[in-house]
Formats: sequence, structure tokens, C-alpha cells
Amino acid sequence: MAEPNPQSVGIVEPQTLHVAETMPLDCGKTIERFDLVYETYGTLNADRSNAVLVCHALSGNHHAAGYHNEDDEKPGWWDKCIGPGKMIDTDHFFVVSPANLGGYNGSTGPGSLHPETGRHYGPDFPVLTCSDWVRSQNILREALGIEQWAAVIGGSLGGMQVMQWSIDYPDRIAHAIVIAAAPKLSAQNIAFNEIARQAIITDPEFHDGRYYEHGVVPRRGLMLARMLGHITYLSDDAMRAKFGRDLREGRINYGFDVEFQVESYLRYQGASFVDRFDANTYLLMTKALDYFDPAHETGGSLARAFAPATARFMVVSFTSDWRFAPERSREIVDALVDAGKQVSYAEVTSDLGHDDFLLTMPHYVHTLRAYLHRVACERDT
Amino acid sequence: MAEPNPQSVGIVEPQTLHVAETMPLDCGKTIERFDLVYETYGTLNADRSNAVLVCHALSGNHHAAGYHNEDDEKPGWWDKCIGPGKMIDTDHFFVVSPANLGGYNGSTGPGSLHPETGRHYGPDFPVLTCSDWVRSQNILREALGIEQWAAVIGGSLGGMQVMQWSIDYPDRIAHAIVIAAAPKLSAQNIAFNEIARQAIITDPEFHDGRYYEHGVVPRRGLMLARMLGHITYLSDDAMRAKFGRDLREGRINYGFDVEFQVESYLRYQGASFVDRFDANTYLLMTKALDYFDPAHETGGSLARAFAPATARFMVVSFTSDWRFAPERSREIVDALVDAGKQVSYAEVTSDLGHDDFLLTMPHYVHTLRAYLHRVACERDT
Repeated sequence: MAEPNPQSVGIVEPQTLHVAETMPLDCGKTIERFDLVYETYGTLNADRSNAVLVCHALSGNHHAAGYHNEDDEKPGWWDKCIGPGKMIDTDHFFVVSPANLGGYNGSTGPGSLHPETGRHYGPDFPVLTCSDWVRSQNILREALGIEQWAAVIGGSLGGMQVMQWSIDYPDRIAHAIVIAAAPKLSAQNIAFNEIARQAIITDPEFHDGRYYEHGVVPRRGLMLARMLGHITYLSDDAMRAKFGRDLREGRINYGFDVEFQVESYLRYQGASFVDRFDANTYLLMTKALDYFDPAHETGGSLARAFAPATARFMVVSFTSDWRFAPERSREIVDALVDAGKQVSYAEVTSDLGHDDFLLTMPHYVHTLRAYLHRVACERDT
Repeated sequence: MAEPNPQSVGIVEPQTLHVAETMPLDCGKTIERFDLVYETYGTLNADRSNAVLVCHALSGNHHAAGYHNEDDEKPGWWDKCIGPGKMIDTDHFFVVSPANLGGYNGSTGPGSLHPETGRHYGPDFPVLTCSDWVRSQNILREALGIEQWAAVIGGSLGGMQVMQWSIDYPDRIAHAIVIAAAPKLSAQNIAFNEIARQAIITDPEFHDGRYYEHGVVPRRGLMLARMLGHITYLSDDAMRAKFGRDLREGRINYGFDVEFQVESYLRYQGASFVDRFDANTYLLMTKALDYFDPAHETGGSLARAFAPATARFMVVSFTSDWRFAPERSREIVDALVDAGKQVSYAEVTSDLGHDDFLLTMPHYVHTLRAYLHRVACERDT
């Protein structure tokens, strides 16, 4: 951890909610007795009206901001945007950041021990949807004694959970902030996910998802999945600017070791991911992405899917994002307008691609900070 | 094989040129004694002036048109465009279609037996470049007694070989027809190739490229590589039109078997590729793609790279191609114009993506047929 930083939430400690109730799931199964791990930043005000829920994306977890100890080198995944004076300002808001059910190193997931069998869930862990996550986050809301979130905010898969919140629990969410998301995956998006899953599932060390019991992990598959993800997170232009065709050793070697810088980058990203992520969780997360399609229930009409919503919406997209391009965000905005909802929209000019939502381009930060400032003011009155 | 078709070249037989000479390669090694397998369609005219060389792409081979026997169900890979009265009209041209060195089931490649050791080349097969292929195709040209190709034509990686021909053997090529190509790969293109290679190389059945001797093939890796390729061959719109979010069984199963039609398509494409392609060849082909960059020799100036060329150029791109988008073809055209070369350019409105070059959209066929008709007329006089 660097020098004390007035813009950091500092040292944070994860907390755990032990859920004793049985929760139904969209797949038809139930889950009994599970843990939700979460972190909070900032202070809950007296009338409990300043709570903001952060929903994470595919590889996220509960550790969104701050450090876990003095020696921690890296802060939480959205630390650039959460803290005193930052975009999500912890001087004003009580930020709640749970780890999704099915995740890794946090809430109960495939790598956890089943309370009855004592074995790892592995492939027995139920397949989840955004609705399931929102249902579990609502249990957390109740446990924290929060009547209504001032805002629910998330990027990418997190943005999908935000939309689901607005539909499933309209009374519990005042503002829905949907960043770099889409109303559903395209066939191409699903295709990328499917290749990532096949890479994992066909890895001989996957052992039908029971690799924990074999003392191995499907490293190769998970590495490939992550490398593939990185292609979709970065724009073609960003890759060109970052790596171009630069050769790592300045010359062609005519071999299969790393030659171009971009290869080196991808291999590093893939290899380091294996040490901090679980393959079964990756499968679950990509499935939840594939399934998300609120308009499926309403005959294909996204506007009708949003009919129950009472939240005010803020939608943000990034011009260089080709995974969930601005067109996809405009589909969300158009549906909200058609449904007669209040919606603001910002299309942020950006360079890097999908991952821009984690960063701090001035237009992005100023727009969302201003929006959230108005949210804070209205909650104070 | 269907009913006799006056537009088909009919039954064709591959021929083999045994090359006894030692050929130097860009990697610094040499290759001694190798076979070039090729097919020809149409008739060489008396003054040997009507020969057209077809260069194939990543997964192509010598079998570009016609059938190998009466029971053959599928014709050659470019049969839609080569034949009597077709785009490349065998009533006018003598079409020569070689399999690239390093390929599979054709010219000498990693799956061939080394003439000295009697073992499969495997990983000992040298890494090749477009220049190497062109050098070997020039040996074939000499063997066939052809002074100058009326045209050299190819799509994708084939188009790169066409450009290389125009630079390396300017006197031997009258017309260069470059289809759906790029002057070099982008970082994103290289990234896709690298993931495909890593999928193959990390497959435990790859055995450092010596899988032939283990009686296995790296099926999983090659399958993943092909699935990934298909994402880049099809446009997002084409995938949407072809598959959308259609569920194979009409409902969500909440599992990891095929659920969406696009998953079924990709798995089929991946699995069927394994039976007809060699993993080491896939590695070599992607490396040749990565390396192609004629401007590298001329300080980054593509125009200067084209300085030696005397051919007249025809460049074709497809609007829905995102692997090698029209912008990339326009870079080629701009460089040729800067270099003072004769160049025509057609941007074909298309839907499917990169693979459109294999098909027969009217604008595409009419444009190229008309161009080639002029080529035929000028060669007759």
C-alpha cells in the first residue's frame, strides 16, 4: 500500500452475511445456507437513505475499493472510481459491494464446500442468472436495514444486474446507473463465451468440474478463456496504440516463442488470471451473461420488460467499446424512453474499449459525479 | 458428385512436382527435396500466356475446383468462382492451383516424412513466410514453362501472396488481384492468431509437435482454433441474421450442453476441421500471416515496398469483413497510387464477412469477371 491517500477508502475488511433461508433459483433448483461476502465504504446515514449498491462484472468480486492490509500492492478493482471525492463519493454515500453468488474467494460458489456433503460444489453448483444475483443482493439489502438503494450501479455484466434490479425490485432502487452494458448478448458475444467455456471444459485437468478433488486446475483452458476475453475488452485501436506490431526482441525469430509484444501481454494476462480465478466460476459467469435478456419474457419488447421500473436511469457507453458498443446502450435508452421512463444518456469518447468503464476519463467522471451529486442532494432533503 | 454440370471443371487429378533443388528460406534455413502438389483447370494456350495462379488462404489447399471422383460430395474450395463461364473462366484461362509448402495433404509439410530421417517433420519443419511460398510457386511456374502469369489471384492470406509476387517477381506477373486482404496484420489480428496457437500448443496431445509419433492429434486445441477463426470470418450482423439468440431446443436448459444455435454451429465447425487439417500446419499458416509486412523492409512505407512492381492491380474488399476491413484494402490502394502503379478498386457491399470472397455476390463476380475478360483479351492479341 502506498502512502496514506486522502482519496482512498484505506484499509477495508470484508464482511460475511450467513443466509439461513432457502432461496429459489431461476433454474428451478434452490440454494440453502449460503454466504454473501461484501465490503462497505463510507458511512450509512441516520435514515439509511444514502446506500449505493455496486454490482460487479465477470471477473470482479466484493473488493471494489481500498486495501486489505498495509502490504497490499493493488487496491480493489474499481478503486479509481470509489472513494472520498471520487466519482462514487464515499463522503456522501455508503457503498455496498457484494461478491456474487457463484463467485470465487468470496460468496458461496463452486469452489466452496457443500454444507451437507462436505465436498466442493464443483459442477453441482446451480447455474445462475442475473435475477438470482439480484434476489440474493436483496437479501443483503434487507439484512443491512436499507429500505431503498439511493442507486444501484454497475458496468458490463454489472450493468445487467442494475437493469434487473429496476425490473425485479422497482421500489427498492431510486436510481439505476447502467454502464457499458447491453440489453442482451449478440450471437457473436455468445460465440466468444462458448469458445472460452469449451477451452475450460475440454482441458483434461477440468475433470468434469471436479478438479479441486484432483489437486489440479484447468490452467490451460482458463488461460485461453482470459486471453480471449482481453481481445474483446480492448479496442482494435487501443491494441494498435499499445502494441502495434512491435517485436519483443526487435526482430523476427521464426519460432513459436513470444515474438510480438501483444503476444507477451496476452500470455501474461492469461497466466496471472489462473492464480486468482476459478474455472467453474468463469463458466457460471459467462452463462449468466448469455442468459440475460429481460425482453425474452415480454415477447421481445424491452420497453415492456422495463414497464415495472420506477427508478430513474443513467446509461453510459464508450465509443471505443466493441464488446458492448454504444448502439447496444442506445437500445436500452430507446426502450426506456418508449416505456416512458426517466433516462439520461452519456456516450463517452474513449480509446481503450470495454474496460474504459474502470477508468477515469474526465467526461465520464464529471458526468457521473454530477449525476450522483444530485442523487445525494435529493436524498438529504 | 451431382449431375454433370457444364459450369464445373469436372473430375480433376492433383499433380505433383518433385523439386530436387535446395531452396533458401527467409528464416535462414533451407529446404531440400520437396513436393509441390497442384491442380490445373482449363487449357494452356499455345504461347503459354493464359495462365492464372491461384494462391490459397489459411485452410485452403490445391483442390480449388471440381471433384476428385464421381462420389465426391463437395467440390474444391473456390469452385463457385472457378470453371467454364465462372468468375475465373476456364474457357479462357489455364488456372494453376498449388498447395502451399507447409500444408496438409498436399505439398510437403510438417506431416510429411523427412527424406533423410524418415520421421515426420513435425516441429522441425521450418517456419515459412509469404516470400517463401512465392519462391516455391515460382519454381512451379518455371517447371510449367510459363514465362509470365496472366494474373495471380487470391483472397485473405492468398491476397498477401499476390502482393508478394508483385514485389518479388515483377516480370512474372501481369495482373495482381488482391481480394479481402491487408498490408499487414493488426495487433488484434495477431492476438487472435496467438490464442489459436496457444490452444494448440498447450493441448497435452500436441507433444511438442510430435503428435504423429504418439498416434494422437491435438483435437481440442485445433477445434478451439477453428472456432475462434469462425468468429472472425463471420460478421456480427451475419451471426445475428444466421443464429440470433435462437435456442436449439427452444428453451433454456441451465447447463453446459449446447443451448444456443451459434454454439452448435461453432462446435460442429471446430470438430469437423480436426478431421481434415493438421495442427502444425495451422501454426505455420498463422505465423506466415503474422509476419507478412512488406513495408517492414522499406522503413514502414508500403508505397516504397511496391516500387519494384510492374503488374496492374485489382483490389477487392467486402463491407462486412471485419477481419480485413475495407480500410485495410484502401491502405493497399493508397500505397499503390502513391507508388504510381495502375490500380482498380472495388468495395463490394456484402453481409457475411471475411468469407464473402469465396461466394458469388453479383457485384463481386461481375467486376472481377469483367476485369479478367480484359486480361484475357489483351493476352490474345
